[in-house]
Amino acid sequence: MGSQIGKRTIKFKNPPNITAAYSVAGRKEKEGPFGQSFDLTFDDEHWGEKTYEQAERKIYLKAVESVIERANLKPDDISFLFGGDLLNQIIASGFAAREVGIPFFGLYGACSTMAESAILGSMAVDGGFARYVVCATSSHFATAERQFRNPLELGTPKTPSAQNTVSASGAVLLTSDRGRYPAATHATAGRVIDLGATDVNNMGAAMAPAAVETIICHLEDTGRGDNYYDVILTGDLGTFGTSLFHKLADDSQHDFSAVHQDCGSLIYGGDEKMNCGGSGCGCGASMLCGHFYKELVQERIKRLLFVATGALHSPTSALQGESIPCIAHAISIEMGYGG
Amino acid sequence: MGSQIGKRTIKFKNPPNITAAYSVAGRKEKEGPFGQSFDLTFDDEHWGEKTYEQAERKIYLKAVESVIERANLKPDDISFLFGGDLLNQIIASGFAAREVGIPFFGLYGACSTMAESAILGSMAVDGGFARYVVCATSSHFATAERQFRNPLELGTPKTPSAQNTVSASGAVLLTSDRGRYPAATHATAGRVIDLGATDVNNMGAAMAPAAVETIICHLEDTGRGDNYYDVILTGDLGTFGTSLFHKLADDSQHDFSAVHQDCGSLIYGGDEKMNCGGSGCGCGASMLCGHFYKELVQERIKRLLFVATGALHSPTSALQGESIPCIAHAISIEMGYGG
Repeated sequence: MGSQIGKRTIKFKNPPNITAAYSVAGRKEKEGPFGQSFDLTFDDEHWGEKTYEQAERKIYLKAVESVIERANLKPDDISFLFGGDLLNQIIASGFAAREVGIPFFGLYGACSTMAESAILGSMAVDGGFARYVVCATSSHFATAERQFRNPLELGTPKTPSAQNTVSASGAVLLTSDRGRYPAATHATAGRVIDLGATDVNNMGAAMAPAAVETIICHLEDTGRGDNYYDVILTGDLGTFGTSLFHKLADDSQHDFSAVHQDCGSLIYGGDEKMNCGGSGCGCGASMLCGHFYKELVQERIKRLLFVATGALHSPTSALQGESIPCIAHAISIEMGYGG
Repeated sequence: MGSQIGKRTIKFKNPPNITAAYSVAGRKEKEGPFGQSFDLTFDDEHWGEKTYEQAERKIYLKAVESVIERANLKPDDISFLFGGDLLNQIIASGFAAREVGIPFFGLYGACSTMAESAILGSMAVDGGFARYVVCATSSHFATAERQFRNPLELGTPKTPSAQNTVSASGAVLLTSDRGRYPAATHATAGRVIDLGATDVNNMGAAMAPAAVETIICHLEDTGRGDNYYDVILTGDLGTFGTSLFHKLADDSQHDFSAVHQDCGSLIYGGDEKMNCGGSGCGCGASMLCGHFYKELVQERIKRLLFVATGALHSPTSALQGESIPCIAHAISIEMGYGG
């Protein structure tokens, strides 16, 4: 049973515990500085499947099945799977949900999906509707290129502001079971923010304003200061988006420079071939479920605000000259939170 | 605060009241037998906008704004908007959410979205996370044809098993405020069911097994008989899908013939030009928020099970030879429910 605090933040009365997390990532991600933190990696974008879309389904399914196994549970124990991905009609998630057989709530929040699913999953658990839920998302470099940009076969060069869609997935298991685990304590749902950006090769710039708006709202609603969190972790702003993020925070008299980290900027360790870094639902999801979940469990990080941002345009809306509406959902994950 | 009953049904402790509903529909829908029950109709698929996609956004936005106004509220009073639509990256919903400014949870459940959004909205309200939420969806004939089939300009003939995507939207306002209104009492989330259908021109046949599976699970979980509900209302099985639905129910020793109605079969009154009837998220949504909501308020119907079915394939998955995974979400809406 939760409550609303401030303008648009919710507080979980019995913070759902994240008793397990699982991340799956590809070769380029394995070669980055966080390669060892992923629970499972694969070397080839097809991963033994005939199509890239089937490969993405496989990485999604693997994360979901593995997180359940890690929690010593069976798919039948899970009340709901909350998830989505970037593909049209979220086919990675929908087909994976068919395989695993868990009642499925399909989501579309673009790259904000990991936070969106964790918020809705936490509501289901804290609201008494479920004992166990799984929240998951994925992205895949080749499926995203084909759908949003150009098929890989064309060898189209990237603009310097572009980011590289991460081939990865992440899944968390949330439960009302008690114990000392990282727990979801608060969440702030995003509003759709659109400052008029139209450059589909610069997603970070489009999404940064949404991230800043949600974070500031979250801090005001909870009465927490800029440095309350050990880490404010954005999903995939990338290096360009991160600069803009700090500029916009500064304009609003906030300073997140001591605590902010961005999964998109981190995942490839600044490799220049990756331009502004990583992007995609799987970027934030695999970093949260890989490196950062382990940091939380080991209590090297005790208070983390995960802020996943999504760009809600489509190739059709972009061709029709529309700007890029963006959203950022935030969820507070804390160890040893006392209420 | 809810609870789980049976295998996968949830029971709302304080059933969220649907204090307002609003439906918007196009010309063909207005000319059907339920034309008078829609709250607002428009005559031209563009509805004054430059693109069909903008027109769909407008019908979505109109339903959301109007349902809030009808409840004597302002957008600022609404904690969350739950919604989605059929378009890639759910651009009708996302852009409408930008205009109205309400914190937004984007969903993709294909044509099951109205039930999915109402279930999640009910969880948010009953769980104490929100006092007011809006759940909405839309579909549009021309945007769906362009995306899933062929642009209208080609004049492609339809197969006899095809259905006509309804240009319409529907929105409900759910609240914890008390009073005698139709209320969401129980919900059963769908599993993804796929019996191997591959004919994308016969969605009803693909979706019927999911509807039957969810309904039977719901009745078993709640201990309710085949005739407990005055109406079991499916979203858009169409006439072919409805025949199969009854056949499958019969195979499972159930008989829903006395209580089943299907929005897709009803909306065009059996007009032969519409082949197997209506389809799309907006079909079930506009019929639920139009005709059936009024029937509930006037207590001509007291127990309604709304079962919206969705086909979770994409044009890409179909081209890759995949079958059509389907889902059905069910929500029980009752007047004067005593617990």
